[in-house]
Amino acid sequence: MPRPRRSEHTRESLIEHGIELLSEHGYHGTGLKLILDTVKVPKGSFYNYFDSKEQFAAEIIEAYTATLMAQFERYLETSNDDPLTMIRKVYETMIKQFEAQGCHKGCLIGNMAAEIGGSSERCRTVMQETLEIWKRRIVELLELGQKKKQIRSDLGASELADVFWNTWEGGILRMKIDGNAASLRRSLDILLDYFLREPAG
Amino acid sequence: MPRPRRSEHTRESLIEHGIELLSEHGYHGTGLKLILDTVKVPKGSFYNYFDSKEQFAAEIIEAYTATLMAQFERYLETSNDDPLTMIRKVYETMIKQFEAQGCHKGCLIGNMAAEIGGSSERCRTVMQETLEIWKRRIVELLELGQKKKQIRSDLGASELADVFWNTWEGGILRMKIDGNAASLRRSLDILLDYFLREPAG
Repeated sequence: MPRPRRSEHTRESLIEHGIELLSEHGYHGTGLKLILDTVKVPKGSFYNYFDSKEQFAAEIIEAYTATLMAQFERYLETSNDDPLTMIRKVYETMIKQFEAQGCHKGCLIGNMAAEIGGSSERCRTVMQETLEIWKRRIVELLELGQKKKQIRSDLGASELADVFWNTWEGGILRMKIDGNAASLRRSLDILLDYFLREPAG
Repeated sequence: MPRPRRSEHTRESLIEHGIELLSEHGYHGTGLKLILDTVKVPKGSFYNYFDSKEQFAAEIIEAYTATLMAQFERYLETSNDDPLTMIRKVYETMIKQFEAQGCHKGCLIGNMAAEIGGSSERCRTVMQETLEIWKRRIVELLELGQKKKQIRSDLGASELADVFWNTWEGGILRMKIDGNAASLRRSLDILLDYFLREPAG
Protein backbone atom coordinates (compact mmCIF):
# COMPACT_ATOMS: atom_id res chain seq x y z
CA MET A 1 0.00 0.00 0.00
CA PRO A 2 1.40 3.39 -0.90
CA ARG A 3 2.32 5.66 2.00
CA PRO A 4 2.56 9.07 0.35
CA ARG A 5 3.43 11.08 3.48
CA ARG A 6 6.35 8.91 4.40
CA SER A 7 7.50 8.78 0.78
CA GLU A 8 7.39 12.53 0.50
CA HIS A 9 9.45 12.83 3.66
CA THR A 10 12.09 10.41 2.34
CA ARG A 11 12.14 12.20 -0.99
CA GLU A 12 12.75 15.55 0.72
CA SER A 13 15.38 14.00 2.94
CA LEU A 14 17.19 12.55 -0.08
CA ILE A 15 17.24 15.97 -1.72
CA GLU A 16 18.26 17.76 1.45
CA HIS A 17 21.20 15.43 2.11
CA GLY A 18 21.93 15.31 -1.60
CA ILE A 19 22.60 19.07 -1.54
CA GLU A 20 25.24 18.56 1.16
CA LEU A 21 26.79 15.49 -0.42
CA LEU A 22 26.96 16.84 -3.97
CA SER A 23 28.33 20.16 -2.70
CA GLU A 24 31.09 18.30 -0.89
CA HIS A 25 31.94 15.38 -3.18
CA GLY A 26 30.66 16.44 -6.60
CA TYR A 27 28.36 14.52 -8.95
CA HIS A 28 30.56 11.57 -9.83
CA GLY A 29 32.22 11.62 -6.40
CA THR A 30 28.87 11.02 -4.67
CA GLY A 31 27.83 7.43 -5.11
CA LEU A 32 24.16 6.50 -4.73
CA LYS A 33 25.21 4.14 -1.93
CA LEU A 34 26.58 7.05 0.09
CA ILE A 35 23.33 8.98 -0.38
CA LEU A 36 21.13 6.02 0.54
CA ASP A 37 23.28 5.13 3.55
CA THR A 38 23.14 8.72 4.79
CA VAL A 39 19.35 8.89 4.56
CA LYS A 40 19.02 5.22 5.66
CA VAL A 41 16.99 4.25 2.63
CA PRO A 42 17.26 0.62 1.50
CA LYS A 43 19.36 0.06 -1.59
CA GLY A 44 17.18 -0.35 -4.63
CA SER A 45 14.45 2.02 -3.53
CA PHE A 46 16.19 5.10 -4.94
CA TYR A 47 14.42 4.59 -8.25
CA ASN A 48 11.05 4.75 -6.50
CA TYR A 49 11.82 8.41 -5.97
CA PHE A 50 13.88 9.44 -8.99
CA ASP A 51 14.19 8.24 -12.59
CA SER A 52 17.96 8.55 -12.53
CA LYS A 53 20.89 10.09 -10.70
CA GLU A 54 20.78 12.85 -13.31
CA GLN A 55 17.14 13.70 -12.45
CA PHE A 56 18.07 13.61 -8.76
CA ALA A 57 20.90 16.10 -9.41
CA ALA A 58 18.58 18.35 -11.43
CA GLU A 59 16.09 18.44 -8.53
CA ILE A 60 18.93 19.12 -6.10
CA ILE A 61 20.03 22.10 -8.18
CA GLU A 62 16.46 23.44 -8.13
CA ALA A 63 16.07 22.91 -4.38
CA TYR A 64 19.44 24.52 -3.64
CA THR A 65 18.51 27.60 -5.66
CA ALA A 66 15.08 27.82 -4.00
CA THR A 67 16.73 27.78 -0.56
CA LEU A 68 19.22 30.48 -1.50
CA MET A 69 16.55 32.65 -3.12
CA ALA A 70 14.31 32.32 -0.05
CA GLN A 71 17.22 33.44 2.15
CA PHE A 72 17.81 36.35 -0.26
CA GLU A 73 14.12 37.36 -0.26
CA ARG A 74 13.78 37.16 3.52
CA TYR A 75 16.61 39.61 3.85
CA LEU A 76 15.37 41.95 1.13
CA GLU A 77 11.86 42.11 2.60
CA THR A 78 13.06 43.42 5.93
CA SER A 79 15.86 45.66 4.72
CA ASN A 80 15.86 49.40 4.19
CA ASP A 81 19.42 49.45 2.88
CA ASP A 82 20.43 50.90 -0.45
CA PRO A 83 20.88 48.39 -3.32
CA LEU A 84 24.69 48.06 -3.09
CA THR A 85 24.54 47.53 0.67
CA MET A 86 21.80 44.92 0.20
CA ILE A 87 23.93 43.00 -2.29
CA ARG A 88 26.99 43.29 -0.07
CA LYS A 89 25.15 41.99 3.00
CA VAL A 90 23.60 39.03 1.16
CA TYR A 91 26.93 37.97 -0.31
CA GLU A 92 28.90 38.68 2.87
CA THR A 93 26.48 36.32 4.63
CA MET A 94 27.27 33.64 2.08
CA ILE A 95 31.02 34.15 2.53
CA LYS A 96 30.55 33.67 6.27
CA GLN A 97 28.67 30.44 5.57
CA PHE A 98 31.52 29.23 3.36
CA GLU A 99 34.02 30.11 6.08
CA ALA A 100 31.98 28.26 8.69
CA GLN A 101 32.31 25.16 6.47
CA GLY A 102 36.08 25.56 6.10
CA CYS A 103 35.97 27.11 2.59
CA HIS A 104 36.02 23.77 0.83
CA LYS A 105 32.43 23.32 -0.31
CA GLY A 106 31.70 26.28 -2.55
CA CYS A 107 28.58 26.85 -4.63
CA LEU A 108 26.66 23.81 -5.80
CA ILE A 109 25.72 25.51 -9.10
CA GLY A 110 29.34 26.41 -9.87
CA ASN A 111 30.51 22.93 -8.92
CA MET A 112 27.88 21.24 -11.07
CA ALA A 113 28.53 23.64 -13.98
CA ALA A 114 32.24 22.77 -13.84
CA GLU A 115 31.77 19.03 -13.48
CA ILE A 116 28.70 18.15 -15.56
CA GLY A 117 27.69 21.40 -17.31
CA GLY A 118 29.22 20.03 -20.48
CA SER A 119 27.85 16.50 -20.21
CA SER A 120 24.36 16.59 -18.66
CA GLU A 121 21.87 18.42 -20.83
CA ARG A 122 19.17 17.99 -18.20
CA CYS A 123 21.23 19.60 -15.43
CA ARG A 124 22.51 22.28 -17.77
CA THR A 125 18.92 23.30 -18.61
CA VAL A 126 17.97 23.44 -14.93
CA MET A 127 21.06 25.53 -14.18
CA GLN A 128 20.06 27.96 -16.93
CA GLU A 129 16.58 28.27 -15.43
CA THR A 130 17.80 28.77 -11.87
CA LEU A 131 20.39 31.28 -13.02
CA GLU A 132 17.58 33.25 -14.69
CA ILE A 133 15.56 33.27 -11.45
CA TRP A 134 18.56 34.71 -9.58
CA LYS A 135 19.30 37.13 -12.37
CA ARG A 136 15.80 38.65 -12.49
CA ARG A 137 16.09 39.48 -8.80
CA ILE A 138 19.57 40.96 -8.94
CA VAL A 139 18.76 42.96 -12.08
CA GLU A 140 15.87 44.61 -10.20
CA LEU A 141 18.31 45.65 -7.47
CA LEU A 142 20.91 46.88 -9.95
CA GLU A 143 18.30 48.89 -11.86
CA LEU A 144 17.12 50.45 -8.61
CA GLY A 145 20.74 51.40 -7.86
CA GLN A 146 21.08 52.90 -11.32
CA LYS A 147 17.93 54.98 -10.77
CA LYS A 148 19.35 56.21 -7.48
CA LYS A 149 22.65 57.06 -9.26
CA GLN A 150 24.46 54.67 -6.93
CA ILE A 151 25.33 52.16 -9.67
CA ARG A 152 26.93 53.04 -13.01
CA SER A 153 24.51 53.43 -15.92
CA ASP A 154 26.92 53.21 -18.83
CA LEU A 155 26.42 49.45 -18.77
CA GLY A 156 23.06 47.67 -18.63
CA ALA A 157 21.88 46.05 -15.40
CA SER A 158 21.64 42.71 -17.19
CA GLU A 159 25.29 42.70 -18.23
CA LEU A 160 26.39 43.97 -14.82
CA ALA A 161 24.49 41.04 -13.30
CA ASP A 162 26.32 38.63 -15.63
CA VAL A 163 29.76 39.99 -14.71
CA PHE A 164 28.75 39.92 -11.06
CA TRP A 165 27.80 36.24 -11.26
CA ASN A 166 31.01 35.36 -13.11
CA THR A 167 33.25 37.21 -10.65
CA TRP A 168 31.46 35.70 -7.68
CA GLU A 169 31.56 32.13 -8.98
CA GLY A 170 35.20 32.40 -10.06
CA GLY A 171 35.95 33.87 -6.63
CA ILE A 172 34.49 30.76 -5.05
CA LEU A 173 36.80 28.57 -7.14
CA ARG A 174 39.68 30.72 -5.97
CA MET A 175 38.52 30.30 -2.37
CA LYS A 176 38.68 26.53 -2.81
CA ILE A 177 42.22 26.77 -4.19
CA ASP A 178 43.37 29.17 -1.46
CA GLY A 179 41.55 27.41 1.37
CA ASN A 180 40.35 30.79 2.59
CA ALA A 181 37.91 33.50 1.46
CA ALA A 182 40.24 36.52 1.47
CA SER A 183 40.39 36.85 -2.31
CA LEU A 184 36.65 36.18 -2.71
CA ARG A 185 35.84 38.89 -0.16
CA ARG A 186 38.26 41.38 -1.76
CA SER A 187 36.80 40.66 -5.19
CA LEU A 188 33.30 41.35 -3.89
CA ASP A 189 34.47 44.66 -2.40
CA ILE A 190 36.26 45.71 -5.60
CA LEU A 191 33.24 44.78 -7.68
CA LEU A 192 30.84 46.77 -5.51
CA ASP A 193 33.04 49.73 -4.54
CA TYR A 194 35.01 50.28 -7.74
CA PHE A 195 33.49 48.52 -10.72
CA LEU A 196 29.73 48.78 -10.19
CA ARG A 197 29.51 52.00 -8.20
CA GLU A 198 28.78 55.21 -10.10
CA PRO A 199 31.98 57.27 -9.87
CA ALA A 200 31.59 60.29 -7.59
CA GLY A 201 31.41 63.74 -9.17
CA MET B 1 65.26 -4.64 -18.82
CA PRO B 2 64.13 -1.05 -18.38
CA ARG B 3 63.31 0.85 -21.54
CA PRO B 4 63.39 4.46 -20.34
CA ARG B 5 62.61 6.08 -23.71
CA ARG B 6 59.47 4.09 -24.23
CA SER B 7 58.45 4.62 -20.60
CA GLU B 8 58.95 8.33 -20.88
CA HIS B 9 56.88 8.40 -24.04
CA THR B 10 54.04 6.46 -22.38
CA ARG B 11 54.20 8.71 -19.35
CA GLU B 12 53.92 11.82 -21.53
CA SER B 13 51.13 10.24 -23.50
CA LEU B 14 49.20 9.45 -20.30
CA ILE B 15 49.53 13.05 -19.19
CA GLU B 16 48.65 14.46 -22.60
CA HIS B 17 45.49 12.37 -22.91
CA GLY B 18 44.80 12.87 -19.22
CA ILE B 19 44.49 16.62 -19.83
CA GLU B 20 41.81 15.98 -22.45
CA LEU B 21 39.95 13.35 -20.44
CA LEU B 22 39.95 15.22 -17.13
CA SER B 23 38.90 18.44 -18.88
CA GLU B 24 35.96 16.61 -20.42
CA HIS B 25 34.85 14.15 -17.73
CA GLY B 26 36.27 15.58 -14.49
CA TYR B 27 38.37 13.80 -11.88
CA HIS B 28 35.89 11.26 -10.59
CA GLY B 29 34.22 10.97 -14.00
CA THR B 30 37.47 9.78 -15.60
CA GLY B 31 38.16 6.19 -14.65
CA LEU B 32 41.72 4.86 -14.86
CA LYS B 33 40.41 2.24 -17.30
CA LEU B 34 39.33 4.95 -19.74
CA ILE B 35 42.74 6.59 -19.53
CA LEU B 36 44.63 3.32 -19.99
CA ASP B 37 42.38 2.21 -22.85
CA THR B 38 42.85 5.56 -24.60
CA VAL B 39 46.64 5.39 -24.38
CA LYS B 40 46.59 1.59 -24.93
CA VAL B 41 48.55 0.85 -21.79
CA PRO B 42 47.93 -2.54 -20.12
CA LYS B 43 45.80 -2.44 -17.01
CA GLY B 44 47.95 -2.59 -13.90
CA SER B 45 50.91 -0.70 -15.34
CA PHE B 46 49.49 2.72 -14.39
CA TYR B 47 51.24 2.53 -11.04
CA ASN B 48 54.59 2.09 -12.79
CA TYR B 49 54.17 5.69 -13.85
CA PHE B 50 52.26 7.36 -11.02
CA ASP B 51 51.87 6.73 -7.29
CA SER B 52 48.16 7.42 -7.39
CA LYS B 53 45.39 8.97 -9.45
CA GLU B 54 45.80 12.05 -7.27
CA GLN B 55 49.48 12.39 -8.23
CA PHE B 56 48.50 11.85 -11.86
CA ALA B 57 45.95 14.68 -11.61
CA ALA B 58 48.51 16.96 -9.94
CA GLU B 59 50.95 16.38 -12.80
CA ILE B 60 48.19 16.97 -15.32
CA ILE B 61 47.40 20.32 -13.71
CA GLU B 62 51.10 21.28 -13.93
CA ALA B 63 51.39 20.17 -17.56
CA TYR B 64 48.19 21.98 -18.54
CA THR B 65 49.44 25.21 -17.00
CA ALA B 66 52.86 24.84 -18.65
CA THR B 67 51.19 24.46 -22.05
CA LEU B 68 48.98 27.51 -21.54
CA MET B 69 51.87 29.62 -20.23
CA ALA B 70 54.06 28.62 -23.22
CA GLN B 71 51.24 29.68 -25.57
CA PHE B 72 50.96 32.95 -23.62
CA GLU B 73 54.75 33.58 -23.73
CA ARG B 74 55.03 32.79 -27.45
CA TYR B 75 52.45 35.44 -28.17
CA LEU B 76 53.94 38.03 -25.80
CA GLU B 77 57.44 37.61 -27.24
CA THR B 78 56.35 38.52 -30.75
CA SER B 79 53.80 41.18 -29.91
CA ASN B 80 54.16 44.93 -29.93
CA ASP B 81 50.65 45.51 -28.68
CA ASP B 82 49.80 47.55 -25.59
CA PRO B 83 49.11 45.54 -22.40
CA LEU B 84 45.28 45.56 -22.59
CA THR B 85 45.37 44.47 -26.24
CA MET B 86 47.83 41.70 -25.38
CA ILE B 87 45.55 40.39 -22.63
CA ARG B 88 42.51 40.65 -24.89
CA LYS B 89 44.18 38.73 -27.72
CA VAL B 90 45.46 35.94 -25.46
CA TYR B 91 42.04 35.44 -23.87
CA GLU B 92 40.13 35.86 -27.12
CA THR B 93 42.30 33.04 -28.52
CA MET B 94 41.26 30.86 -25.58
CA ILE B 95 37.58 31.68 -26.14
CA LYS B 96 37.97 30.60 -29.78
CA GLN B 97 39.54 27.34 -28.59
CA PHE B 98 36.60 26.76 -26.24
CA GLU B 99 34.17 27.48 -29.09
CA ALA B 100 36.01 25.07 -31.37
CA GLN B 101 35.37 22.37 -28.72
CA GLY B 102 31.66 23.21 -28.44
CA CYS B 103 31.96 25.23 -25.21
CA HIS B 104 31.59 22.21 -22.96
CA LYS B 105 35.13 21.59 -21.75
CA GLY B 106 36.17 24.76 -19.95
CA CYS B 107 39.34 25.33 -17.97
CA LEU B 108 40.96 22.32 -16.35
CA ILE B 109 42.08 24.38 -13.34
CA GLY B 110 38.58 25.74 -12.74
CA ASN B 111 37.07 22.28 -13.16
CA MET B 112 39.53 20.68 -10.76
CA ALA B 113 39.14 23.54 -8.25
CA ALA B 114 35.36 23.03 -8.28
CA GLU B 115 35.45 19.25 -8.08
CA ILE B 116 38.44 18.38 -5.87
CA GLY B 117 39.79 21.74 -4.62
CA GLY B 118 38.16 21.01 -1.28
CA SER B 119 39.16 17.36 -1.02
CA SER B 120 42.62 16.86 -2.54
CA GLU B 121 45.30 18.74 -0.64
CA ARG B 122 47.93 17.68 -3.17
CA CYS B 123 46.02 19.04 -6.17
CA ARG B 124 45.03 22.17 -4.26
CA THR B 125 48.70 22.92 -3.55
CA VAL B 126 49.64 22.44 -7.22
CA MET B 127 46.76 24.69 -8.26
CA GLN B 128 48.02 27.38 -5.90
CA GLU B 129 51.51 27.12 -7.41
CA THR B 130 50.32 27.21 -11.01
CA LEU B 131 48.00 30.12 -10.25
CA GLU B 132 51.00 32.02 -8.87
CA ILE B 133 52.98 31.35 -12.07
CA TRP B 134 50.14 32.79 -14.16
CA LYS B 135 49.65 35.66 -11.75
CA ARG B 136 53.28 36.81 -11.83
CA ARG B 137 53.06 37.12 -15.62
CA ILE B 138 49.71 38.95 -15.72
CA VAL B 139 50.76 41.31 -12.90
CA GLU B 140 53.78 42.36 -15.01
CA LEU B 141 51.45 43.21 -17.87
CA LEU B 142 49.00 45.05 -15.63
CA GLU B 143 51.81 47.06 -14.02
CA LEU B 144 53.12 47.99 -17.45
CA GLY B 145 49.60 49.15 -18.36
CA GLN B 146 49.43 51.19 -15.16
CA LYS B 147 52.76 52.86 -16.00
CA LYS B 148 51.44 53.69 -19.46
CA LYS B 149 48.26 55.14 -17.86
CA GLN B 150 46.19 52.61 -19.81
CA ILE B 151 45.11 50.66 -16.72
CA ARG B 152 43.63 52.17 -13.55
CA SER B 153 46.11 52.75 -10.71
CA ASP B 154 43.70 53.22 -7.81
CA LEU B 155 43.81 49.44 -7.30
CA GLY B 156 46.99 47.33 -7.16
CA ALA B 157 47.99 45.14 -10.11
CA SER B 158 47.90 42.09 -7.83
CA GLU B 159 44.27 42.61 -6.83
CA LEU B 160 43.29 43.47 -10.40
CA ALA B 161 44.88 40.17 -11.45
CA ASP B 162 42.84 38.32 -8.81
CA VAL B 163 39.56 39.86 -9.95
CA PHE B 164 40.51 39.16 -13.55
CA TRP B 165 41.09 35.47 -12.79
CA ASN B 166 37.84 35.20 -10.86
CA THR B 167 35.77 36.86 -13.57
CA TRP B 168 37.37 34.75 -16.29
CA GLU B 169 36.93 31.45 -14.46
CA GLY B 170 33.35 32.24 -13.46
CA GLY B 171 32.72 33.26 -17.07
CA ILE B 172 33.85 29.81 -18.17
CA LEU B 173 31.34 28.20 -15.79
CA ARG B 174 28.68 30.42 -17.30
CA MET B 175 29.79 29.36 -20.79
CA LYS B 176 29.25 25.73 -19.79
CA ILE B 177 25.76 26.52 -18.49
CA ASP B 178 24.83 28.59 -21.54
CA GLY B 179 26.43 26.27 -24.06
CA ASN B 180 27.97 29.30 -25.77
CA ALA B 181 30.67 31.87 -25.05
CA ALA B 182 28.64 35.08 -25.51
CA SER B 183 28.56 35.99 -21.82
CA LEU B 184 32.21 35.01 -21.29
CA ARG B 185 33.27 37.22 -24.21
CA ARG B 186 31.13 40.14 -23.03
CA SER B 187 32.53 39.81 -19.51
CA LEU B 188 36.08 39.94 -20.88
CA ASP B 189 35.21 43.09 -22.85
CA ILE B 190 33.57 44.77 -19.86
CA LEU B 191 36.50 43.88 -17.64
CA LEU B 192 39.07 45.27 -20.07
CA ASP B 193 37.16 48.24 -21.48
CA TYR B 194 35.27 49.47 -18.42
CA PHE B 195 36.65 48.03 -15.19
CA LEU B 196 40.40 47.83 -15.74
CA ARG B 197 40.92 50.68 -18.19
CA GLU B 198 41.97 54.05 -16.77
CA PRO B 199 39.00 56.38 -17.31
CA ALA B 200 39.68 58.96 -20.02
CA GLY B 201 40.19 62.58 -18.99
